[in-house]
Order: sequence, then structure tokens, then C-alpha cells
Amino acid sequence: MSAEWLRRWRRGGPAERPGPDPAAGPGPPPPALRYRRPKFVPGGAEESPRGGRAVRGAGSERPLPWGAGYAEVINAEKSEFNEDQAACCQISVRRREPGLEEDEEWLILCSMQFLTGYYWALFDGHGGPDAAIIASNYLHYCIKQKLEEVVGGITEAQPPMHLSGRCVCDSDPQFVEEKHIHAADLVVGALENAFQECDEVIGQEMESMNQTGGCTALAALYFQGKLYVANAGDSRAILVLKDNVVPMSSEFTPETERQRIQHLAFLFPKLLDGEFTRFEFPRRLKGDDVGQKVLYRDYFMEGWGYKTVEKADLKYPLVHGHGKQARLLGTLAVSRGLGDHQLKVIDTNIEVKPFLSCIPKVNVFDFALHDIKEDDVLIMATDGLWDVLCNSEVAQMVRSFLAENRTDPQRFSELAKCLVCRARGMKRGHQWMLDDSHEASYDDISVFVIPLHNKEED
Amino acid sequence: MSAEWLRRWRRGGPAERPGPDPAAGPGPPPPALRYRRPKFVPGGAEESPRGGRAVRGAGSERPLPWGAGYAEVINAEKSEFNEDQAACCQISVRRREPGLEEDEEWLILCSMQFLTGYYWALFDGHGGPDAAIIASNYLHYCIKQKLEEVVGGITEAQPPMHLSGRCVCDSDPQFVEEKHIHAADLVVGALENAFQECDEVIGQEMESMNQTGGCTALAALYFQGKLYVANAGDSRAILVLKDNVVPMSSEFTPETERQRIQHLAFLFPKLLDGEFTRFEFPRRLKGDDVGQKVLYRDYFMEGWGYKTVEKADLKYPLVHGHGKQARLLGTLAVSRGLGDHQLKVIDTNIEVKPFLSCIPKVNVFDFALHDIKEDDVLIMATDGLWDVLCNSEVAQMVRSFLAENRTDPQRFSELAKCLVCRARGMKRGHQWMLDDSHEASYDDISVFVIPLHNKEED
Repeated sequence: MSAEWLRRWRRGGPAERPGPDPAAGPGPPPPALRYRRPKFVPGGAEESPRGGRAVRGAGSERPLPWGAGYAEVINAEKSEFNEDQAACCQISVRRREPGLEEDEEWLILCSMQFLTGYYWALFDGHGGPDAAIIASNYLHYCIKQKLEEVVGGITEAQPPMHLSGRCVCDSDPQFVEEKHIHAADLVVGALENAFQECDEVIGQEMESMNQTGGCTALAALYFQGKLYVANAGDSRAILVLKDNVVPMSSEFTPETERQRIQHLAFLFPKLLDGEFTRFEFPRRLKGDDVGQKVLYRDYFMEGWGYKTVEKADLKYPLVHGHGKQARLLGTLAVSRGLGDHQLKVIDTNIEVKPFLSCIPKVNVFDFALHDIKEDDVLIMATDGLWDVLCNSEVAQMVRSFLAENRTDPQRFSELAKCLVCRARGMKRGHQWMLDDSHEASYDDISVFVIPLHNKEED
Repeated sequence: MSAEWLRRWRRGGPAERPGPDPAAGPGPPPPALRYRRPKFVPGGAEESPRGGRAVRGAGSERPLPWGAGYAEVINAEKSEFNEDQAACCQISVRRREPGLEEDEEWLILCSMQFLTGYYWALFDGHGGPDAAIIASNYLHYCIKQKLEEVVGGITEAQPPMHLSGRCVCDSDPQFVEEKHIHAADLVVGALENAFQECDEVIGQEMESMNQTGGCTALAALYFQGKLYVANAGDSRAILVLKDNVVPMSSEFTPETERQRIQHLAFLFPKLLDGEFTRFEFPRRLKGDDVGQKVLYRDYFMEGWGYKTVEKADLKYPLVHGHGKQARLLGTLAVSRGLGDHQLKVIDTNIEVKPFLSCIPKVNVFDFALHDIKEDDVLIMATDGLWDVLCNSEVAQMVRSFLAENRTDPQRFSELAKCLVCRARGMKRGHQWMLDDSHEASYDDISVFVIPLHNKEED
């Protein structure tokens, strides 16, 4: 349904409020996506030259919302394209008069008002750049649409039981109160539904283009005085405040979601088609282990036990490896994200998608409860950054850079470049090295630096 | 298998290490359980007289491990029996010589050594007292057995990949290291497995006695310098330390586990047999709501959205109500616990058990990392206490009582009684009232007060 308006929008260009159009035929097959860099990166329309891994930033001629900074660098020949994508924009959410039925809305077309949100997102593609490009084109439309669907509830002091404002039962406000439902919960619900919607769109688009691939998604939305960070995958967002660092996301990988993944295989063993074992072992087992009691974990265990090894345990484990090497079905390094509808384990008929989740975890930060200082920022970055820099290293770089560059109008862009540079390191022979002679990041790296000061006054 | 030794133990009396006995026949059907109070409560063998809700404590002639205190009171005529049960004991875990095969163990029978653990547990029964009585009789045996199965790994500096100590692969220790597997993880795994085992035993016993019912389980185990608290249900354990309060458990109720429960119904809609809706609404819907957009949540949502109500949404919700009134399938107030294998939703064929989990969440407290002071205690109590007293109120009572009663050798027993008394309140007319004229607890109330000082030196 909604996927349909997005598809039509893609064919026909943006429309403020696409509605059903029964006269519209199926139309020609959608054109293949053209690879591109984000629109706000100068030269973004061209295919990215590798260019010795030069760091590229947002141009000063098209400033990002809030004067945010952005920078990126392509991977060290891991893939033909930079599989990261970025998006940011203002989101205008059309306000509805409470109590008006949908078919009466034309009555207030003139007094229409908008609520304004601000959106930044990073997508880290795998299996090709396509899913990340579609996500960077569509997710904000899905969010706008889902927010508009509930906006009547968001603008009330307390979300009403009935969106129409009609009161079917006198004690409805008490029921809503008892469940502690606030406007922020509607925004969280809208983000959760938007990710699901966007995943559906990607599935349809990729199928129609006969493409495969998926992407992680990390989206930040500032709306009505609160910052919402929705994450599905292994990108990360942190608030670097004057006195502390607030993690705004957590990573979803085969390791962090082992129990959910194993439990699904326990409930539906056919998903493994006899090719994988659901148990976790410290390493892949071999013939010599059969009959021995070895360390293992099943879906219900946070602890470890010993299991007498049977032949079936020699199969490849559903979740295997450790840290950056951890894989789901030997195939994927993340357990949440968008796309991958067509992904199968190589040389098998085993689908990966049932084990993936497209649902983000949403964290909320209420600006009204914090005294935001001048140099407080939100840092969003793909795993290319976090693989080599921890939160406290990033926080330290942010604080010292901003303290030393008080007046530069491009300071947030420069800081984004500085962070990407640091994680990419320098080329020494055939290797990319950090300052401290550890290996640098060979991955695509994308970073937003978003200043927060005085934004609640917008 | 292990359920079998427990059953035979129950028939034949305790054995230090029950092993398979192929000669043993099926035996006579087990006798019906006799209702009783915990063995360490004087008069515990008799059926509990209601006695005006007199608070009963552990007798001073049979001191509990560590001089712990215990007190209990029966409910205000909610059920015929006090459905809470308590257990505590020392657990001796037989140490095995690493590297010895099971059939060589007779060689070291003389040098056998034991590791000593200390165990306290509370069980809150529903649908009758039986499940709680069986659990209080068996869970410590299950824990002992599961610990003995892995003890060879616990006593090593690092758990070996192979329980036998044999090294199949040179880098096995690195694999174990990489996964951060420590001895404590084996204890956690043993507790998780013990709860599952005990649940199985209860299912078999209750079936053979043609009984129904279930119970929550909260178990504390002190073992090798660490305190493990395993919880399945809505009892609670907190550490009251000099300077802070450390929650050692969290509650599992239809509300706290809504998403897990709804997800199962999404995966297996047949479990609801067309009688329930999986969606959550702030209140039960009625005919007038049909066609309206009302607040709702599905399994993947932490936030809320609006859903156009269909007729099917008028069915009773899978998870319904709020706080103490929240129910799973309109039937149960907890979402984890032991037993309930036969429980069906009244007047239907819908089983509740698939939605229940018998797996505890285990929290670990490492004594070596804390400076335990003289009056630091672990408080364990069933929901009868926590329904009317919050953590900070309990902590304040604990601290002031112990400060004012420095020398009484029975101070921990007296404190337990004092806590139970406070939550039970006083009878005023037909009501039980707290001091501050709020309603007191009408439920069964059971409390352990366990002193922690110097226990790591045992």
C-alpha cells in the first residue's frame, strides 16, 4: 500500500501527499539505480573515484541542517564502490486538525500547518551499494509518512485513545495515562514502523531490479524538542557533551543477538536445512571432538555448559566467530538492517532474511532535561570509524578539536574530516596505519558531526 | 534422564550421587504431596494454621546458613494454603580430578574433595501449593547435579575447551579466552540448566499426581567467592550495602515480557486458537471502537501507534491489564516460572505453557570487587513484600534496624520478621492497613535476610 506510493513517487517525482490513484497503471519497469555519493558531497553525482582514499566532505555552498559537518572516505579496495550512504534533510510533518475526519480535511487546506523535524542518517551497504542508495532515498519519506499518520496524537498534551479525538469511553484518558503513553512513544512507534516500511520498499525495488544486497541503518531525528536515534545494524551514535558521553545506540550483530537467532532456529529447525548447528562453540568442531564434552551454549543460556559432541555438532554453526569476524550463517556480519530479501547462504537454499530484523532500537534524548552547552555534539558514524576508535577516543578528539577551533565557521565539517582521517590513517607501503602504528580502518568510513546547542529554540 | 534420578531419589531417599540403576522397576505411583511449611520454621510439618496472619520465623534452635534470618506470613484468605515456599541449605559439589575419565573415578574415591556452596530460595505458587513444594524440595538437587557436571571446568583457572582437560587443538585456550569464558559462566549455565531440569521434574510429578499449578523461583547461590541470583518470576532480591542498593534481579511479568510473548503469537498464531488478539491496546476494545483509529502496540514496537480497529481486535488481548492486574491470556500474572504444564485458559483448549519461560535471568555479584561491610545484607522476598514496599523503603528499614540492634544474635531473624510485619500491616476492621493508612499486602509474604560480611573467608 504505502510501498506503492513510494514506488509511484520514485517514477513520477515527489508529491507532497501521494494518495491512491486507481487510474495509474503498473508503468514501465523501474530503471536500474545509478551509483552516486550523497547529494550534499560536491561531485556527488559522479561515480566515486577511489583517488587514494581522499577524504571528502560536505561542501560549504550547501550547508547541512544546523550547520552539521559530514565527511567520508571509500574503503581500501574491499569493494568497487563506497557502500556507505548518507542522507539528511528537514522533515515537514503536516499537522491535522484533531477531530476532523479524513474526508473533511479539504476544509482546512488553507490553515494547514507543519511541524518541522531534522533528520540525519547513515547506511552501510553490503553485497553491493543498491540497498543503501534506496534506503538513503526513501527512509525519510517513510518517517514523514508515519509521523503524519499519528501527528494528531503527537500534538495533544497526551495522545488520545482515538486519533479522531472522539471519546468512546469516559475513562480513556486514564487508560492512556496508566500505560504512561506520551507523544514521544508515538514518534518511537512511527520510526519502528518506518524502518519496516522502508525494508518492504527495498525488498520490492531490489526484486524488480533483480538486485541483491542490504544495508544497516542509523537515523537521528530531532522532533518536538527531543532527539530520537533509531539503529538497525552496527553503526553507532554518541552524544559528546561537556561532562559526559551518552551512547545513543547499541550494535546488532550475530554476537549481540545470538540468543534471538538461536531461538528462532530452535523454533523452526527447517530454516537451517540440516546444514548448520544451532549451538555455539568456542571454535568450529572437528572429528576429534566427537564424544568429548566441550564448551557450548544454547539459545536459553547466557552462561556456558559442556555438551557431549555428536556428529551433527560438526556442522557449521549458525552464529560463528568473534568480534568483527562473527558471522550469521557464515554470511553476514550484522543481524539487523534493511534489505537482503533475496540473500541465500552460498551454494544452498538457506535464506538469511528470517534471521534478520529490520526493527530499530530507538533511544530518546530529551533536550528539556539537559543543559546543552556550546560544543555539545551528536557523532554518528559507520563501523569503519568505531572499528579503530572507541567512544572515549572520539570524545577526546571532539572536545580538543572544538576547543582549539572556536571561530572557524566550518569547524563541524573540519572535525568530521579529522575523525575520518584519523580512522583511515596513513598509507605506509601497502598498509593503512594509525598514528600509533596499529592497523587503520580498511572499511568505508562516514561521519556526521551535529551541533546541538540552542536547537531546542528552533 | 536426570529427572529420573530425582524421581527415584524421591521414592528411595537421598543418595549422594544417584547413578543409573537398570534393575530399578517403575515402582509404585508417587504419593500425593503433603502440604507443609519450610523445615526450618518451627511447626513446619503441620498444615499452617491461618492464626490471624501471625508472622512466623525460622527457629533459633536450627540456625540457617550464615545465621540468615527468615520470616513469613500467610495471605489474607486468598487461598487455603500459604502458596509461598522457602528452602536453604549448604550445597556440596563433588570435585573431580581433571583429566580422569568417568570410569576411572573409583581410583580417586578416597581423595575426593568437595566445593561448598550456600543456597537460599523462594517459590511463590499459584493454582495450588504443589509446584512450589516440589521446587523447594528439588531445585537445590538440580543445581548440585548441574554444578557437578561442570565442576572440572570451574576449578581450573580458565574453563578448558574439553571437560576432560585433553587438548584437541593447540589454540583451544585462546578460543576460550577470546570468548571471555570464565568459571562464573559455567555456574550461570548450571543454574540455567538446573531451572530447566527442575521444571521438567515438576511437569512429570504434577502429571503423575494429576495436579496443576506452578510457581515462581528466586534462588541465590554463593559459590567460589561470588553471589549468583537466578530469578524466574516476580520475586525480587536486592543487596542493601552501606552506601548503595544493588538490584540483583528483575521481574518477569506479562508486561515486562510483552514483546517476547506477542512475538511468539505472531510466529505461531494457532496458539491463540482464534480466541485472543495479539495486539496490545490501552483498554479492552468494544463494538463502538470498530472502524476508529486507536492506540496499539505490536510485538516489534516499544513505541505506540494508531491502528484502525477491526472486529478481530475486539477479542481478549494476549497481554492485558496494568501493573499487578496485568495478565497473560487473562490467566497468569507472571511470565516465567516452573510448572503450569497442564494449565489451560478457562473454558478453552489454549495452553499457557508455550508462552511461559522457565529460564532464569542470572545476576552475578563478585565479592572480591567489593568491600563488604558488617551490616551489608541480601534481601530476598516474594512479591507480597515488594507490592507495598519499594527498594529504598526496605533499604532504609534494614539500615536503621541493624544500626539499632547491633548485639542481638537473632538480629537478622528479627529484621526479617519486622519486614514481613511492615508489609502485612495491621488489621483495622476487615482491612489490612499499612502505618500510613494505605492498604497493606493481602498476599503471602516471605523474606530472607542474609548477612554477607566476611563470607568470602568461609
